[in-house]
Amino acid sequence: MSKANRGFEVIPGGVTAVPGFIAAGVAAGIKKIDSPKKDVAVIFTRYAAKAAAVFTTNKVKAAPIFVTREHLAGGIARAVVVNSGNANACTGEQGMRDARRMASLTGELLGIGPREVIVASTGVIGVPLPMDRVEAGILQAVRDLSETGGASAAQAIMTTDTRPKEVAVRLELQGHPVAIGAMAKGSGMIHPNMATMLGFIATDAAISQPLLQSALRQVVGETFNMLTVDGDTSTNDMVAVMANGAAGNPEISGPGEDYDLFVQALGYVCAQLARMIARDGEGATKLVTVQVRQAPGVEDARKAAKAVANSNLVKTAIFGADANWGRVLTAVGYSGAEFDPAKVDIFLAGERETEQVAGDGAGLRFDEEKARSILEGDEVTIVIDLHAGGAEATAWTCDLSYDYVRINADYRT
Amino acid sequence: MSKANRGFEVIPGGVTAVPGFIAAGVAAGIKKIDSPKKDVAVIFTRYAAKAAAVFTTNKVKAAPIFVTREHLAGGIARAVVVNSGNANACTGEQGMRDARRMASLTGELLGIGPREVIVASTGVIGVPLPMDRVEAGILQAVRDLSETGGASAAQAIMTTDTRPKEVAVRLELQGHPVAIGAMAKGSGMIHPNMATMLGFIATDAAISQPLLQSALRQVVGETFNMLTVDGDTSTNDMVAVMANGAAGNPEISGPGEDYDLFVQALGYVCAQLARMIARDGEGATKLVTVQVRQAPGVEDARKAAKAVANSNLVKTAIFGADANWGRVLTAVGYSGAEFDPAKVDIFLAGERETEQVAGDGAGLRFDEEKARSILEGDEVTIVIDLHAGGAEATAWTCDLSYDYVRINADYRT
Repeated sequence: MSKANRGFEVIPGGVTAVPGFIAAGVAAGIKKIDSPKKDVAVIFTRYAAKAAAVFTTNKVKAAPIFVTREHLAGGIARAVVVNSGNANACTGEQGMRDARRMASLTGELLGIGPREVIVASTGVIGVPLPMDRVEAGILQAVRDLSETGGASAAQAIMTTDTRPKEVAVRLELQGHPVAIGAMAKGSGMIHPNMATMLGFIATDAAISQPLLQSALRQVVGETFNMLTVDGDTSTNDMVAVMANGAAGNPEISGPGEDYDLFVQALGYVCAQLARMIARDGEGATKLVTVQVRQAPGVEDARKAAKAVANSNLVKTAIFGADANWGRVLTAVGYSGAEFDPAKVDIFLAGERETEQVAGDGAGLRFDEEKARSILEGDEVTIVIDLHAGGAEATAWTCDLSYDYVRINADYRT
Repeated sequence: MSKANRGFEVIPGGVTAVPGFIAAGVAAGIKKIDSPKKDVAVIFTRYAAKAAAVFTTNKVKAAPIFVTREHLAGGIARAVVVNSGNANACTGEQGMRDARRMASLTGELLGIGPREVIVASTGVIGVPLPMDRVEAGILQAVRDLSETGGASAAQAIMTTDTRPKEVAVRLELQGHPVAIGAMAKGSGMIHPNMATMLGFIATDAAISQPLLQSALRQVVGETFNMLTVDGDTSTNDMVAVMANGAAGNPEISGPGEDYDLFVQALGYVCAQLARMIARDGEGATKLVTVQVRQAPGVEDARKAAKAVANSNLVKTAIFGADANWGRVLTAVGYSGAEFDPAKVDIFLAGERETEQVAGDGAGLRFDEEKARSILEGDEVTIVIDLHAGGAEATAWTCDLSYDYVRINADYRT
């Protein structure tokens, strides 16, 4: 997407780049007692907001997922409370009570109803929340809420993330400037299904709740879900959006140009966060983008792109800068996508160069040096042309390195 | 299965432990010119044999898969020819010609028809076979065929395997001693879909072709396929069996006690090979067995066991001897199996000790020292009791170590 064609511009900041939203992140000792690492975040909108969310499809769901789903049944919310360091998953009835308590305390302190609060947790599974510290953290975070607090909130939701993830854009709807700002966490991208992905999006757009929900669902399908294999999600995954209408644009209440512009900008925000998550994958040394072109249908394109992005063998080959296109083609082969193996072309692309490594399903005599130089870059794109139709899809991942093993071999203890 | 209850006994050797079968493995310079590493194997039965096979479900199939499928259409075979070091996959028309040539040359030298030859290849994808060396290797292997050649044949099909894999058993059918002997290769078990798994089974049982095929299909579903995720297979996977009837037992031509005994013994042979492959997984430091009990159906049990066995996060935790049962439960959660998360019990078992780490879907206060000592053993079993029915399944895998990354980061070049 060239900047010239975008219907929006990128602006600094994250959730608090949006008028009416304040936020904070504090260190409450949940990750580690007396550690300066932030682990409780609160986001608050001064004005009533429409809200929508998508949740993990895992049969094993963490307590905050149940509580938030219940709270969002009415389609409105005013606040988000999140802790990191503990997932509050597989914690039984106590976990449900704790998640409800996080919401009710946040609501009390902010003067809103408990059901207007979105609750989320991320971290270790199966350990009860240290509620004294969680409550003290919420109290402090609410005190610290500010119009510049987005960055500290983004820090407070990190687990194995090495950097906070924020993005914001501004667009115009019927002459009214509208902002969308967001933050996310997630870094266990090798088997993304297990890496809790949290995303919180703020906007001052006026939009009806059903359209907000449908925009979110569409965009998540093209972005965050392309970091994962279908149905493979953690116990805690959640992406939530609040739209407070403060921009004063005529409410988007049906399909049309305004809705399309909003979806386009929201899609950019989520794609950027997805790329940031992939690039920050546990142990990652580079961002890997997989583009599938000319697939018979979007589902074929998505299956093929995700199978390649999920292949350990493709990812270790990229870590080793080895142009092993056979592993790419094999992953497409077991993806379930419809295609003719004898028609597939595969290209490797870096930031400046492109090299075709396979044509018509067979290896080409390619420039090994050039391929290696592409694979040694910070960003590698694998382009797979199926020559089987008009659909396309993009998936994001990272390489698989020694550090992935180091990070995950002893995460819990 | 206790030895007392088995209808068979384990005997030394592999394919040539079976009367009437001779074999050889030779170094032909396919893996590396002038290397002493064996890379061409031939197995031959002196008597006509019924044959059956199962093949990869990958849409991208190597040339020898097409050729062997065609050759086995009549249900008979006399020989197997295999090369390692080159998969003859994604090699176009030339690859088909080369696979046919391997069969025709082998047949010529053995005085049998080309269609009586099973052809297989394993190794790097997308590079044409060095046919001069392959042909010289076949010539040498046929010259070397002997009744003690099973071990050298098993060595010649290895790629990243660190040891050859052979097993043989003897059973009795209607008073006639019957042998089943087999060899296999495969070691890229982390994403098993990509790791070519080859298995060749010899038996002197007299059995009709349709029953041989159905026995093989059933046993592979319970053993080799439990090393993999459904549909995730390499371009070259193949398991083939030849039954030459030399034992003189009344031909097994329908269901009954003889068929059941044969299937039980064949199942043991394939399960042992599957365990050997898992234990020899690339970079593996231990064998991991995942047992799912009390599932509503066999498919649920298999899905759950395979999801856990395929989880990078479970495998890295086991490498780190970290009793991270939350990752186990989460994998069951996204497996697609039917179950109630609140009823799941999880146990870790070593060769001597067992420790329950989760009960009713939540963490227990377990003995961390004991759990660590179990996880530090050579063999770790994860037992998951779903309390949801009467079906069960077992999957095998290995841990995910630094060496997996090292081995796969630069396999091709």
